[in-house]
Amino acid sequence: MTDRLSPDTLRIALPSGSLQNSTFELLGRAGFHVSVTDRGVFPRVDDDKLSAVLFRAQEISRYVAEEIVDCGLTGHDWIVENGNENDLVEICELVYSRASVNPVRWVLAVPDESAVKRAEDLAGGIIATELVNVTRKYFAQRGIKITVEFSWGTTEIKARLLDAIVDATETGSSLRANNLRVVETLLTSTPRFVSSRKAWDVPWKREKMENIAMLLRGALEGRAKIGLKMNVPQAKLAEVVAFLPAEKSPTVSRLADEQWVAVEVILEENQERELIPRLKRAGASGIITYPLNKVIP
Amino acid sequence: MTDRLSPDTLRIALPSGSLQNSTFELLGRAGFHVSVTDRGVFPRVDDDKLSAVLFRAQEISRYVAEEIVDCGLTGHDWIVENGNENDLVEICELVYSRASVNPVRWVLAVPDESAVKRAEDLAGGIIATELVNVTRKYFAQRGIKITVEFSWGTTEIKARLLDAIVDATETGSSLRANNLRVVETLLTSTPRFVSSRKAWDVPWKREKMENIAMLLRGALEGRAKIGLKMNVPQAKLAEVVAFLPAEKSPTVSRLADEQWVAVEVILEENQERELIPRLKRAGASGIITYPLNKVIP
Amino acid sequence: MTDRLSPDTLRIALPSGSLQNSTFELLGRAGFHVSVTDRGVFPRVDDDKLSAVLFRAQEISRYVAEEIVDCGLTGHDWIVENGNENDLVEICELVYSRASVNPVRWVLAVPDESAVKRAEDLAGGIIATELVNVTRKYFAQRGIKITVEFSWGTTEIKARLLDAIVDATETGSSLRANNLRVVETLLTSTPRFVSSRKAWDVPWKREKMENIAMLLRGALEGRAKIGLKMNVPQAKLAEVVAFLPAEKSPTVSRLADEQWVAVEVILEENQERELIPRLKRAGASGIITYPLNKVIP
Amino acid sequence: MTDRLSPDTLRIALPSGSLQNSTFELLGRAGFHVSVTDRGVFPRVDDDKLSAVLFRAQEISRYVAEEIVDCGLTGHDWIVENGNENDLVEICELVYSRASVNPVRWVLAVPDESAVKRAEDLAGGIIATELVNVTRKYFAQRGIKITVEFSWGTTEIKARLLDAIVDATETGSSLRANNLRVVETLLTSTPRFVSSRKAWDVPWKREKMENIAMLLRGALEGRAKIGLKMNVPQAKLAEVVAFLPAEKSPTVSRLADEQWVAVEVILEENQERELIPRLKRAGASGIITYPLNKVIP
Amino acid sequence: MTDRLSPDTLRIALPSGSLQNSTFELLGRAGFHVSVTDRGVFPRVDDDKLSAVLFRAQEISRYVAEEIVDCGLTGHDWIVENGNENDLVEICELVYSRASVNPVRWVLAVPDESAVKRAEDLAGGIIATELVNVTRKYFAQRGIKITVEFSWGTTEIKARLLDAIVDATETGSSLRANNLRVVETLLTSTPRFVSSRKAWDVPWKREKMENIAMLLRGALEGRAKIGLKMNVPQAKLAEVVAFLPAEKSPTVSRLADEQWVAVEVILEENQERELIPRLKRAGASGIITYPLNKVIP
Amino acid sequence: MTDRLSPDTLRIALPSGSLQNSTFELLGRAGFHVSVTDRGVFPRVDDDKLSAVLFRAQEISRYVAEEIVDCGLTGHDWIVENGNENDLVEICELVYSRASVNPVRWVLAVPDESAVKRAEDLAGGIIATELVNVTRKYFAQRGIKITVEFSWGTTEIKARLLDAIVDATETGSSLRANNLRVVETLLTSTPRFVSSRKAWDVPWKREKMENIAMLLRGALEGRAKIGLKMNVPQAKLAEVVAFLPAEKSPTVSRLADEQWVAVEVILEENQERELIPRLKRAGASGIITYPLNKVIP
Repeated sequence: MTDRLSPDTLRIALPSGSLQNSTFELLGRAGFHVSVTDRGVFPRVDDDKLSAVLFRAQEISRYVAEEIVDCGLTGHDWIVENGNENDLVEICELVYSRASVNPVRWVLAVPDESAVKRAEDLAGGIIATELVNVTRKYFAQRGIKITVEFSWGTTEIKARLLDAIVDATETGSSLRANNLRVVETLLTSTPRFVSSRKAWDVPWKREKMENIAMLLRGALEGRAKIGLKMNVPQAKLAEVVAFLPAEKSPTVSRLADEQWVAVEVILEENQERELIPRLKRAGASGIITYPLNKVIP
Repeated sequence: MTDRLSPDTLRIALPSGSLQNSTFELLGRAGFHVSVTDRGVFPRVDDDKLSAVLFRAQEISRYVAEEIVDCGLTGHDWIVENGNENDLVEICELVYSRASVNPVRWVLAVPDESAVKRAEDLAGGIIATELVNVTRKYFAQRGIKITVEFSWGTTEIKARLLDAIVDATETGSSLRANNLRVVETLLTSTPRFVSSRKAWDVPWKREKMENIAMLLRGALEGRAKIGLKMNVPQAKLAEVVAFLPAEKSPTVSRLADEQWVAVEVILEENQERELIPRLKRAGASGIITYPLNKVIP
Repeated sequence: MTDRLSPDTLRIALPSGSLQNSTFELLGRAGFHVSVTDRGVFPRVDDDKLSAVLFRAQEISRYVAEEIVDCGLTGHDWIVENGNENDLVEICELVYSRASVNPVRWVLAVPDESAVKRAEDLAGGIIATELVNVTRKYFAQRGIKITVEFSWGTTEIKARLLDAIVDATETGSSLRANNLRVVETLLTSTPRFVSSRKAWDVPWKREKMENIAMLLRGALEGRAKIGLKMNVPQAKLAEVVAFLPAEKSPTVSRLADEQWVAVEVILEENQERELIPRLKRAGASGIITYPLNKVIP
Repeated sequence: MTDRLSPDTLRIALPSGSLQNSTFELLGRAGFHVSVTDRGVFPRVDDDKLSAVLFRAQEISRYVAEEIVDCGLTGHDWIVENGNENDLVEICELVYSRASVNPVRWVLAVPDESAVKRAEDLAGGIIATELVNVTRKYFAQRGIKITVEFSWGTTEIKARLLDAIVDATETGSSLRANNLRVVETLLTSTPRFVSSRKAWDVPWKREKMENIAMLLRGALEGRAKIGLKMNVPQAKLAEVVAFLPAEKSPTVSRLADEQWVAVEVILEENQERELIPRLKRAGASGIITYPLNKVIP
Repeated sequence: MTDRLSPDTLRIALPSGSLQNSTFELLGRAGFHVSVTDRGVFPRVDDDKLSAVLFRAQEISRYVAEEIVDCGLTGHDWIVENGNENDLVEICELVYSRASVNPVRWVLAVPDESAVKRAEDLAGGIIATELVNVTRKYFAQRGIKITVEFSWGTTEIKARLLDAIVDATETGSSLRANNLRVVETLLTSTPRFVSSRKAWDVPWKREKMENIAMLLRGALEGRAKIGLKMNVPQAKLAEVVAFLPAEKSPTVSRLADEQWVAVEVILEENQERELIPRLKRAGASGIITYPLNKVIP
Repeated sequence: MTDRLSPDTLRIALPSGSLQNSTFELLGRAGFHVSVTDRGVFPRVDDDKLSAVLFRAQEISRYVAEEIVDCGLTGHDWIVENGNENDLVEICELVYSRASVNPVRWVLAVPDESAVKRAEDLAGGIIATELVNVTRKYFAQRGIKITVEFSWGTTEIKARLLDAIVDATETGSSLRANNLRVVETLLTSTPRFVSSRKAWDVPWKREKMENIAMLLRGALEGRAKIGLKMNVPQAKLAEVVAFLPAEKSPTVSRLADEQWVAVEVILEENQERELIPRLKRAGASGIITYPLNKVIP
């Protein structure tokens, strides 16, 4: 186990905090097993050509842009906040959990009882946020004069002490629980895999990053999909296949009993619950579904 | 996230407490991803046509019968206790965990040292239970006069303070640990998926409930089964297939090497450990088994 | 649930402590579901012909040799320490977690600043260890006089208070964290499944132990491997297959579109991340990988 | 340690659940050290003449009235609910934590948006509560017809599903968090130490219960009070003493330096923060305060 | 319970995070009982004239200076960082835990192996810190050009990635564990009780804050001291008293047995273990010590 | 913080494991504040002349006898087991918790159903124990031939697998829960403070150890006692004083009102609950009790 970032490896920054567990889990599915000791910041990866460091998601784009690491997984929001959009190569977007998790939205919010209806109504006011630069730019572009203060957490509370806040939300439920109302959305954000320009120009690093991106996307697809097998009467094959999503071409094989064929197809996991009852009613039998690790088209 | 039950959705009640985690896990395998915030009672489901509420298993049949929700997952025991057997449609029985979990039995139990041998010996006595109505009816039908008191938990203790208890048990180990002896079984119970009569008469609700029932049963089957593939010498095919459970018809495919065939079959997971050594000894090779999500016959 | 070891079952000792969870998990994958109540030492197994007891790994070989149990899972190190090598039948070696976990090494270690370079330099010194007999024998065979003391834990600390320690290590990181230096390795150890001579001579016990060994090894293989399916243009088949590990013979099937064939193969999970990008670049498409439960060659 | 209630001891029932820890702590301060093993219901007390059992607060008055135990600590609310007011001797009222904890109030509550303003407005409606009998009686006495349903927890939620709830509250904050509004208060309750009539008539039991009551009240007083000592210039004694609460007679002693006297007094802990600054400004010096265990007037 | 800061109370900001528990404990000893619900930011205080809000220590001085609250408990470091030194009234310094806790020092630290010996050696370098303004000013005053970056935690790690860090330390052990070396100390800090100028000019608020300060200091003294009583032979009184710290004048009282006198004195708790053996050897007997709540000289 | 035992300090070994917390708490009451970081074995003590190390209680006497440390706190049982009785100076016995904790007894135990009635009945049998040497000696002195095996925990279970066990017990409840019966007691043990002979001969070390012993005993007394003050009518003084334990001479002082006197006395905490009701009934009023830190006679 090393406690430094080795210069002859691909140095990758991973987000600590709320994204850490899901990032490790995703990397594991992609084939990179990451473990971290208590309080350690240099996780161990089972790949000699890769060394990792944990940073707060807020910082990662800066350290990639400064070439302290070669690449990193971070949110689009912090890339913009740090002003690193033009300093980096964005290798791919990764929507960690497709069905149930919405992208993060940074919204301008005020108390339910506030008179503020639009951003303009805040002119002259004070806003608390963790995303200071994005907020300042947003109001400056609209010609609205405001004061923006950095907030160290429990931002929701400050919406009542000051005039408004800009805070991150997925479902809006935390805002509602604090009796706050969304006025406008400033920025929508998803995780990104980014590289420094310099690392991108080193052929072996670029190939390794492209491989990692392919495996990460394959793992995300694998989690969102399932394999399905069923037996279908030859006579009803066309009818059954018509239920399957158009872009899928199922594999059809003959069975010993020539009245029946075996059909196998890869489906979105969230189509399964709609499709299975239809397939069954259309005559399919012996339907089984099984989990996938990776799907690479 | 809604914090109310929306009237244009199928409103389903789920059991909080000891059954909550296994119910959520089962629904997830069926394709309905349920999540709940701390202390929340309105879990979020990733299906716009479904809204859920958490109640104690004890209450669910009542709220279904009163049409406050359309349907629910609850135990047969509480349906009977609440006297809702004729007010509901029982869509299906669900044995949550087939191999290791026995159905719940509600038993009449007395201290090991008690002279009571049969229910009749309790005439004139006091019994503590959470299942008051079932217990009263049971003794009334036998013409035995007893007093039944509602017990707020730690019922086992009361077997020594009063005369007997009626308590739920799966394996009997908690009773034995308290030095109690089972006299008779009053009721055996498994989880049920139930609907109100009114919801059952609404075509789209009925279809949705039937689909959910099909997917829940498919997920339970998928957990109890596995897929098995193996290569078998053509010459030994009959002998190997003879080991497989009679009702299963395996899929047999030809291989490049014509001396061998590939055989694929779905098995009960708990047959696997007996079958694999036999198949191996009978000449099978390259045996692999893989997990299943759902099995729908 | 029994709380004794029944004489007409195969009585198996399982290691409590640090190996307990991974042993239960492995047995579960092999098809034997083991559960244990709080503080219980007689775990429940879902096999009527098997009864289990939990002992410290240090003791198990002794109780097998004394025929108090029929068989057990324990480490090679404690078999040697207890001097039971010739009293037992070693049924199989089991490397619990193939890729990431190294075998345990028992090493002679001294403080970084110590003058000791070889075992000989310790003549006349005091050594603390949990593995007293192995250590004494090791030095006796080399004709070096030392005192060996049994250590009750936190052995690393004693390297500075006395002259040296003999301690178990997997990666060496705990030694380095205590600024200790490895001088020599005394013993390398992996888990073993062992039987008493007497049980081995009872035909039904021997067959059951051989079956268990086959299923345990199959489960370990199943965890280390994955299934891979892909579609390959007929024209590129040879090129793609050349990337696959030499010893694997993939199953090739025809598809409806005769330009393409379907290829299926079982791979080491840790080869996947290297192979997939290569297969994709060589022309494979529709690559999916899926998990396995067991692989029995 | 006994696991039964011994007949030649004073048998006392203590509340399990939310009051358990504070009850044990109070008994410890009174001089009775109570400990309980995991899941045990017969706590151990370091007094041979006392044996204890844990019940839910809801049940205790019933078991005292039925003479299954001699005495118990429970809430006034559950005594009334169980209809045991005339079956018991109330030895003393105990306000567990004087300053910061308000008595429990059972209130009728409705959603903020409900049209209900008085109990009368609920005529014909359904109310959920844990305190079924008290609620029924309250409405019956006012001639209001309603249906009362027993609620198994998360009662707040039901205020929106049904028409109203009757729930316990100390500060009202949980109701407000659920956007509920208090309509009326049905009952106010504090903990009570109660005896069965039969036990009260046994002289040694009665004396023991009176002693326990004296020590419990002394411990509550001891927690609410502190000792204070200070030096005061002889010339300012009258002025300083005038600040002290009228009913207290301080102990005044002479010091070596005859210009000064030492003053000692017992005060309410919550008067301290007001008094100390005044005493200091009035000329006192060397003020110290110290904790008390018990105060018995 | 209010969820706002009431304008007719003294509004006090308390530090959330690592100082929260010790601050609440200190306030409790001072006579102000503070409790906070899960995730709540408006703690409840048992004083109608006081309302409290939790902020991060970093923010408190800003909110006091902006008169959003009247006063607060925060660290000197963050007052300086926020540039609020001249905007506030410092009511008193509070060393929370006298004996064992050192003041916080903000130090410039570099890797052990770095060539940097003095601040000047960092010219042209990059420094990571949470205390950006103090660090910038420190280097600007010395005419050293550096870049200072805000660090979001795990600052120690950045000492190796950049050139140096400025981080808070109490004992230096965390720095040593990361193999970092202290170059210079930039700032030493202790907790302070501060007021806004405006609140200080309101007589009732000023008096209340002075009272709180007196009680907080008295509680800190009370924790660091103990009361001691002993009996001393009249003949040895002078000798025994000579051991007591010079500034203490013990209270001496006569006893029934005129050969002996009773001596009572208040001592530092950390002198006790030295003094008691000496007093005993010098002839004192019946020595007892007892805890104190507050000491106000 | 040092991570070695400094040679110019008094080096003390403290027991890790089950005794650790109560030992630290006792040392803290004695005036030595000990803290330990996660997994650390060198606790920090706030006394420059004292350095501490944590060992298992089983090992401590050996390391004291070998002069690796100067002194230690350990159990009498392990001193005897290690054969160190004559190699050490026993400074004092310490009964950690006087009222509720019994000394540890090491007992010979067999299954309830065993035919064994006396040690002699075990001749030729196998006994499992952690206390191997004491057990061997006990049987050898009685001329009984047995085999003693070292047991690595869960010893109770082995009573059924082998013939008997020798295990530690305080209340016997764990033995009873395993259905074991005590045959004989081999050894009774309490904690001891011991020194090496060499350290005892160094005057400053001996004086420091005597001081520590005095403070530890004073702290144990302080925990077991309380101070009591009351006002008594002059006329009833003799009667009231007669209730106080004979060996106590209370301090009696005059009050302003000459009809009354103030009486102050130190009592056993466990006498309080008997005495207070009697004193009250005999005419005492204004009774208060207060906690003590130390009592040194």
